[in-house]
Amino acid sequence: MQEKEVLLILTDRWADWEAAYAVAEINSVPTYAVKTIATDRAAKVSIGGIRAEIDYTIDSYHNFDNLAMTILPGGFAWQEARHDEIAAFIKKTRDFQVPVAAICGATIFLGKHGFLNEIKHTGDDLELFQKEHGYDGQGSYMSAQIVVENGFITANETAAVDFAHAIFHILEIDTNKEIDLWYDKFKYGMVR
Amino acid sequence: MQEKEVLLILTDRWADWEAAYAVAEINSVPTYAVKTIATDRAAKVSIGGIRAEIDYTIDSYHNFDNLAMTILPGGFAWQEARHDEIAAFIKKTRDFQVPVAAICGATIFLGKHGFLNEIKHTGDDLELFQKEHGYDGQGSYMSAQIVVENGFITANETAAVDFAHAIFHILEIDTNKEIDLWYDKFKYGMVR
Repeated sequence: MQEKEVLLILTDRWADWEAAYAVAEINSVPTYAVKTIATDRAAKVSIGGIRAEIDYTIDSYHNFDNLAMTILPGGFAWQEARHDEIAAFIKKTRDFQVPVAAICGATIFLGKHGFLNEIKHTGDDLELFQKEHGYDGQGSYMSAQIVVENGFITANETAAVDFAHAIFHILEIDTNKEIDLWYDKFKYGMVR
Repeated sequence: MQEKEVLLILTDRWADWEAAYAVAEINSVPTYAVKTIATDRAAKVSIGGIRAEIDYTIDSYHNFDNLAMTILPGGFAWQEARHDEIAAFIKKTRDFQVPVAAICGATIFLGKHGFLNEIKHTGDDLELFQKEHGYDGQGSYMSAQIVVENGFITANETAAVDFAHAIFHILEIDTNKEIDLWYDKFKYGMVR
């Protein structure tokens, strides 16, 4: 079976920690391969000074049938420009029903381009997601940290572990039980 | 004033999340610059599939007077070989009293080469460190997560935020108060 791709969209000064948990686990299961993508081929330097090489450019990517998810880490570039080319790319992935996961500044970018307009977050869908995926009743805390709705996962900058957890359930990288054990381990530093 | 360097030692399949919080903050203060270093010039691919370019090779690095810290993220390479060349480099940095921060598999590497032999962890030093740096009494939990002693910071894989926090205090990247606010925000997803 061909691996499905998960694209990590990198911009200048991408936030090192925000998608780090997510990509490490996703790229470790045989069904998925994480690839970096950007508007051009130049290496993209993280906030922490990591120069990440780019696998694909946005204008040359057409393999949407084999795309499982697009992940947008935050970073300083999002508030500095509109990034229309990336927005057009996200629109294309949504035409193929590919889920989009964005954290921190990248959620602002999605909002600016109207992608989050349909998300009228009532709390019900979130509660359902939490119930289905074994969150332990810390509802008010969680709802500030992460929203999963209409094919979009959005999270704030301090919620890298929660962000990864929601992504793992959607990509079904393991059984629900194993995914939730991973969450407890990395969220609380222990296994319940 | 010249920026002091903080070296991130990369190996094949380095763990994306483990040093991510640390390098992002360190590289954001004007006094420090994070640089990647490895045994050779080839980009080092993370567990998550990020191909990180290398700034320095170990055999060509001699600027120890300007070195503030060496950080070793974990990763799958540590258990697969002895990495004698990296061990010799760590020994050299210790001759210049440069602190070494290692997490997960990298702590096994340090232990294998005898660097942690002098650390007889009684709990007293850790308690002192915790008291000085505003940990809030979750002693037994913390002591399993991180040890700071004799110029070495060691942490387990689920303790990326604690690892960064200890590093920030040693590098004095901000006031103690600001560093501890950062910790609360990223450890608990809130500011107390």
